[in-house]
Amino acid sequence: MKILFIGDVVGSPGREMITEHIKGLKQEHRPTVTIINGENAAHGKGITEKIYKGFLAEGAQVVTLGNHSWDKKEIFSFIDDATALVRPANYPEGTPGVGYRIIQINQVKLAVINLLGRTFMNPVDCPFKKVDDILAEINGEADVIFVDFHAETTSEKQAMGWYLDGRVSAVIGTHTHVQTADERILPQGTAYLSDVGMTGPLDGILGMDRHAVLHKFLTSMPVRFEVAEGKRQLNACIIAINDKTMNATSIKRITRTDEQTIY
Amino acid sequence: MKILFIGDVVGSPGREMITEHIKGLKQEHRPTVTIINGENAAHGKGITEKIYKGFLAEGAQVVTLGNHSWDKKEIFSFIDDATALVRPANYPEGTPGVGYRIIQINQVKLAVINLLGRTFMNPVDCPFKKVDDILAEINGEADVIFVDFHAETTSEKQAMGWYLDGRVSAVIGTHTHVQTADERILPQGTAYLSDVGMTGPLDGILGMDRHAVLHKFLTSMPVRFEVAEGKRQLNACIIAINDKTMNATSIKRITRTDEQTIY
Amino acid sequence: MKILFIGDVVGSPGREMITEHIKGLKQEHRPTVTIINGENAAHGKGITEKIYKGFLAEGAQVVTLGNHSWDKKEIFSFIDDATALVRPANYPEGTPGVGYRIIQINQVKLAVINLLGRTFMNPVDCPFKKVDDILAEINGEADVIFVDFHAETTSEKQAMGWYLDGRVSAVIGTHTHVQTADERILPQGTAYLSDVGMTGPLDGILGMDRHAVLHKFLTSMPVRFEVAEGKRQLNACIIAINDKTMNATSIKRITRTDEQTIY
Amino acid sequence: MKILFIGDVVGSPGREMITEHIKGLKQEHRPTVTIINGENAAHGKGITEKIYKGFLAEGAQVVTLGNHSWDKKEIFSFIDDATALVRPANYPEGTPGVGYRIIQINQVKLAVINLLGRTFMNPVDCPFKKVDDILAEINGEADVIFVDFHAETTSEKQAMGWYLDGRVSAVIGTHTHVQTADERILPQGTAYLSDVGMTGPLDGILGMDRHAVLHKFLTSMPVRFEVAEGKRQLNACIIAINDKTMNATSIKRITRTDEQTIY
Ligand SMILES: [Fe+2]
Ligand SMILES: [Fe+2]
Ligand SMILES: [Fe+2]
Ligand SMILES: [Fe+2]
Ligand SMILES: [Fe+2]
Ligand SMILES: [Fe+2]
Ligand SMILES: [Fe+2]
Ligand SMILES: [Fe+2]
Repeated sequence: MKILFIGDVVGSPGREMITEHIKGLKQEHRPTVTIINGENAAHGKGITEKIYKGFLAEGAQVVTLGNHSWDKKEIFSFIDDATALVRPANYPEGTPGVGYRIIQINQVKLAVINLLGRTFMNPVDCPFKKVDDILAEINGEADVIFVDFHAETTSEKQAMGWYLDGRVSAVIGTHTHVQTADERILPQGTAYLSDVGMTGPLDGILGMDRHAVLHKFLTSMPVRFEVAEGKRQLNACIIAINDKTMNATSIKRITRTDEQTIY
Repeated sequence: MKILFIGDVVGSPGREMITEHIKGLKQEHRPTVTIINGENAAHGKGITEKIYKGFLAEGAQVVTLGNHSWDKKEIFSFIDDATALVRPANYPEGTPGVGYRIIQINQVKLAVINLLGRTFMNPVDCPFKKVDDILAEINGEADVIFVDFHAETTSEKQAMGWYLDGRVSAVIGTHTHVQTADERILPQGTAYLSDVGMTGPLDGILGMDRHAVLHKFLTSMPVRFEVAEGKRQLNACIIAINDKTMNATSIKRITRTDEQTIY
Repeated sequence: MKILFIGDVVGSPGREMITEHIKGLKQEHRPTVTIINGENAAHGKGITEKIYKGFLAEGAQVVTLGNHSWDKKEIFSFIDDATALVRPANYPEGTPGVGYRIIQINQVKLAVINLLGRTFMNPVDCPFKKVDDILAEINGEADVIFVDFHAETTSEKQAMGWYLDGRVSAVIGTHTHVQTADERILPQGTAYLSDVGMTGPLDGILGMDRHAVLHKFLTSMPVRFEVAEGKRQLNACIIAINDKTMNATSIKRITRTDEQTIY
Repeated sequence: MKILFIGDVVGSPGREMITEHIKGLKQEHRPTVTIINGENAAHGKGITEKIYKGFLAEGAQVVTLGNHSWDKKEIFSFIDDATALVRPANYPEGTPGVGYRIIQINQVKLAVINLLGRTFMNPVDCPFKKVDDILAEINGEADVIFVDFHAETTSEKQAMGWYLDGRVSAVIGTHTHVQTADERILPQGTAYLSDVGMTGPLDGILGMDRHAVLHKFLTSMPVRFEVAEGKRQLNACIIAINDKTMNATSIKRITRTDEQTIY
């Protein structure tokens, strides 16, 4: 099984990049399944039903979320029916939606888990304990297990990678909106990448208009962030997994930009 | 001018990597000057005079620091005489050491500035205001200006990149110990990389023993961190700069590991 | 000189308490001057010109602010003409408004300084260094100096109290919206209270509707906070100062509630 | 039943205050049971077996802890046998010790629960969910329930007070080392106080030597904190509870200092 995972899609520039590149990416990398992190897909904060369905129509099989899951109130009206949507699993019990899903692709069962980190983030349940609980629930019913770990710090992300090494097929970080260059297969067979990066404006700050963000850093005043305009990028990774052993055999970073930069 | 910048050296594994690879790196990349971030060089926290002098003996011209600058008390006894050492410039007035240095290499004057971020870090003076003050002081006396921005978040780092675009030759991030894959030349000519990464243990968490760090994440108990053992990595970047215009013309990430991984 | 200082006024419940009690408080405590912290006066966040002028009409001579200074955009249109308004002094240079004011009451010159803490708050300039600069500027031109230190932690507040002991007449904390019981005269003559408390709803959480705040703690979801309804409180303190020596001679906490509770 | 609760005891100055005042406090207030927060009893960080047993010998029936529970490694050797010691309940499963205890005093069963907050503190399990679980376990087996909520922010503390109003006898905060003046009986009968305060040095910062703490605020450098010397204080509260209804009928703050200050 090959998984194409596309990092946090930010606003319409990010959605356009999906539309423009997904076909080419599929032709080039031949993924069995495509997963998109959509927590910033609606104007940079949250997701709407239309956008979620658009991702499926473009060819994604699963959409994951993060700390911005609830920013568009509309989420509460469609999350219960959104069978391809996964929100962070370590929100407290009773939270709408589900924290993992098992989908079948051809004969292979793929579990997709979404988890939130806690360091420098809002308090949630322990992601390490939660993933233990989920793996016990899955209990061998999945051939491949993919974890989107939405977290701020490299330490918490690396800790999760090591914690799950040999127990899941891949631990891929999201949230910082910057792709890291530390992709590897950990010793027990888990593919790891601290952050897959961001799909959206290239010349903003994390995809948002840089002038507003700079104004905040310079003045300490509250500002209103808007999605940036101009050139765009797409960040993703492609992971090859042996679905007999659950182990990853390769992981490769992917970047597309509007015009050739030095990436 | 070509600058080789080597990311946070962690403990003896990191120092060994310098010793083993610096010659090869110089032969391959032909840097005019080599800069090392040494904030974790002594057992993962701080730096000693012996280690600092060792870096110079190995062929570095400047050593930068970060939030761990003061962790080895010995620093206070040698920092005032350490003419190739730069600590974060935005510590408060009266802090020992200096926050930038101008060195001459052949006919070219290179300024090296070290700055600390503030988001999710201890309070210090504003790095944006401080770098403005330093650039006013330098006032054209440098042909090339290199900034090591030691910060936690991608947003603050990108903000600094954009803030200094066209005003310095390079803004390279440190501190997260994970190399990012977003190297680029910004529109006004400044080389940018969110984080250059870490030089030290490959199989730890940020270079520290992973079992201790995991224990902390799992139990919330205080633990004593030790530098990890085993395989090692070196993270660096090489930046080519036109010393007539101060602009960067290329930036390239560098990684060396003990045995071939998929990097 | 006697100073009546009234803690963070929250929304219309807080403003009503001012209207209903200020006359009685003045009759009972005979202040020479009344200072109100108004950072939450407009619907719990920020202040408007009408509210600011209302405080002056009610009999306040100075209004101080805090981290919510800029939450109502209207502030930018009137702050430059608001000669009795003081915003935190350690916002960066160029921030609208002023960080301290000297007013004359009878023959006595009173300086009122507003400062922000940094621990667990957004980055701003160092409040300790800033207050040094201000005291150097005042340079004996004030007979009495009052500091409203708007900060989160008891450690930073006590640190400021000790730092200024003997150099100002009073260091009174704001921001936590809970009155502390540690009022005292420090050894060198400065009146100190970690937090003067909050004037507004009695049965909310920091003055905001408790159901929304609880929902956030229980679910980790974003919520919209509204000012609470129902019973109300007023928190203040009265400080007596010898305007010949600048030293405080007494400090007393004040609480009024809508009906007698056990306060 | 009357409960005397004594706030965070800091080092030997705090322990001496217990020794010198506990007899007098008992004579004056006639508590049925005495509870001491001992998280800082050993040199300001953690607790030893000798100190714990000393508190019992002085007349305490229960000792509670906080975020400093594990700072003296010795804790792990005696916590399992310490039948009067309660550590925060919302540490993860598997943590040594227990998070609540039920003790019998005369015919009355008293449950003592210790909880940690999460805002601006290290990640732990949700204290709101955890206390629900504990109350379900207690399930009517206790006549009186006392909660020591060890937390940083007034918002999280007030939230816990309201959450438990009518379900426990008292919610008393600890950790900030400053006594608050907001004691009250909430509408459904729960006694509430945001923070009971600290027992130890009067002229330090949170009980630690103020020069070291100030040095840290002024320089951003790491410092070694020592317990302060000189004058001392004791902070406590006394709560009267109807053990038929579980409701509190009164709560009163208590302060003792070495010499009369204006408290
Ligand atoms: Fe995101
Ligand atoms: Fe995110
Ligand atoms: Fe480092
Ligand atoms: Fe660092
Ligand atoms: Fe406030
Ligand atoms: Fe505030
Ligand atoms: Fe404490
Ligand atoms: Fe504590």
